Amino acid sequence: MERLEHRACFGGWQDVYRHRSDVLGCDMTVGVYLPPQAAGGTRLPVLYWLSGLTCTEQNFITKAGAQRYAAEHGIILVAPDTSPRGDDVPDAEGYDLGKGAGFYVNATQDPWARHYRMDDYVVRELPAWVEAHFPASDARAISGHSMGGHGALALALRNPGRYRSVSAFAPIVAPSRVPWGEKAFGAYLGPDREAWKRYDATELVATATERLPLLVDQGGDDEFLDGQLRPHLLQAACEAAGHPLELRIHPGYDHSYYFIASFIGRHIAHHAAALSA
Amino acid sequence: MERLEHRACFGGWQDVYRHRSDVLGCDMTVGVYLPPQAAGGTRLPVLYWLSGLTCTEQNFITKAGAQRYAAEHGIILVAPDTSPRGDDVPDAEGYDLGKGAGFYVNATQDPWARHYRMDDYVVRELPAWVEAHFPASDARAISGHSMGGHGALALALRNPGRYRSVSAFAPIVAPSRVPWGEKAFGAYLGPDREAWKRYDATELVATATERLPLLVDQGGDDEFLDGQLRPHLLQAACEAAGHPLELRIHPGYDHSYYFIASFIGRHIAHHAAALSA
Repeated sequence: MERLEHRACFGGWQDVYRHRSDVLGCDMTVGVYLPPQAAGGTRLPVLYWLSGLTCTEQNFITKAGAQRYAAEHGIILVAPDTSPRGDDVPDAEGYDLGKGAGFYVNATQDPWARHYRMDDYVVRELPAWVEAHFPASDARAISGHSMGGHGALALALRNPGRYRSVSAFAPIVAPSRVPWGEKAFGAYLGPDREAWKRYDATELVATATERLPLLVDQGGDDEFLDGQLRPHLLQAACEAAGHPLELRIHPGYDHSYYFIASFIGRHIAHHAAALSA
Repeated sequence: MERLEHRACFGGWQDVYRHRSDVLGCDMTVGVYLPPQAAGGTRLPVLYWLSGLTCTEQNFITKAGAQRYAAEHGIILVAPDTSPRGDDVPDAEGYDLGKGAGFYVNATQDPWARHYRMDDYVVRELPAWVEAHFPASDARAISGHSMGGHGALALALRNPGRYRSVSAFAPIVAPSRVPWGEKAFGAYLGPDREAWKRYDATELVATATERLPLLVDQGGDDEFLDGQLRPHLLQAACEAAGHPLELRIHPGYDHSYYFIASFIGRHIAHHAAALSA
């Protein structure tokens, strides 16, 4: 592993690392924020942040303003890139498939299956790397934005007991039923829509064995609200399943990091309460 | 004028406008943050933010996290671009002269004198535009980073009574004595170094008729500290002149927006106290 950036921030350090991912078969970059409490010798809980389409590890660490709250609560923030990268990794035309668009699934179809295993990377390999190299405990929370909000919800629901808390900003709640998800799942998982259910939060809540509360914030003026995000499908699925959900629609807010910055403090407080419980 | 961006943020609106500048002879883009209190009908004080080399209006509004604090204190934030722009505007090789490097002076030399009048723009034309089009009072504060820190200090010292408060992050305190300033001042103001004193904070404090306290934060591990910034020259000049200065060196912090984000809350609180006094 190599440290690419090391910047003092709110009394701690915003670092960026490059490390080898055997799961993905490539090098990956990861943002790691170590709050001031990381110097104290005790292991700290970790919030994993999954970014949206086109993003790298940079978007969240430069624009969300999350470090202030992580420093207040003593939480490590880990923000990985959104897909495998490198010349060996297949890509596609368009911003919504291939590099920058991993969708946090384990692909089963060629040419994607070899490298596009973001599920295994985020859920297993990345936490193992974090917990081996940083003063990180195994108390984990997960959140994300848009495609990454889908990832956070789906991976938390698929892995009961693995995360203490989950939240999402403007998530793609029902990827099986919107264009972004249909394109990506069709490519990565193949034409059989049954296979898509394993990564669709609105399907996963129906069979969830753990009633982990879902916290979702959504901008009311988000340009993708009706076409791609459709949070009311998650609301209906949670009501049908009796799964706890707090969904807040914020009039005026759009899909940008200005929206995330405005509410990330509330999410980190939510995770901090669960992580210290 | 044209509104290019309009994004809900911390209960207010982060807007970006394009407006015609007669002073600069070109169109300019400006970030304007209107806090939630701007909807209340009363005129609010304004903090003008001057960015550094290579920046546009985007850097501060996307990376500093200042909107949270402006919303708390009810302050409008105005962040202009850092130079005149457009095909008619002369430019130079390198990032430290010409476009993106206006240095907040009124140029007197060809080919710069026609467009490079950032002093007049920032001190006169921009506030007049802001106070005509937004619920802004004439209670003004000014701050900035690096080249913009120089601008904030120099323009406040040159214009007693115009600003209620001034602060700077990692400012170029003595442009007459460091490479960035020597190159820019030589081009914009000509070879006579006497003319440079009008825009050099370490010279201006010696003759300042108003004892406006200077608040300066500086990263101790800033890569430009010794070569370009040299805050101790300002400290010495203030001591010699009896000018009030609070200079804080922060070990570990560099020149990036992570440094600004870490301390912008303190600066906005400082300005809020002066603006409401």
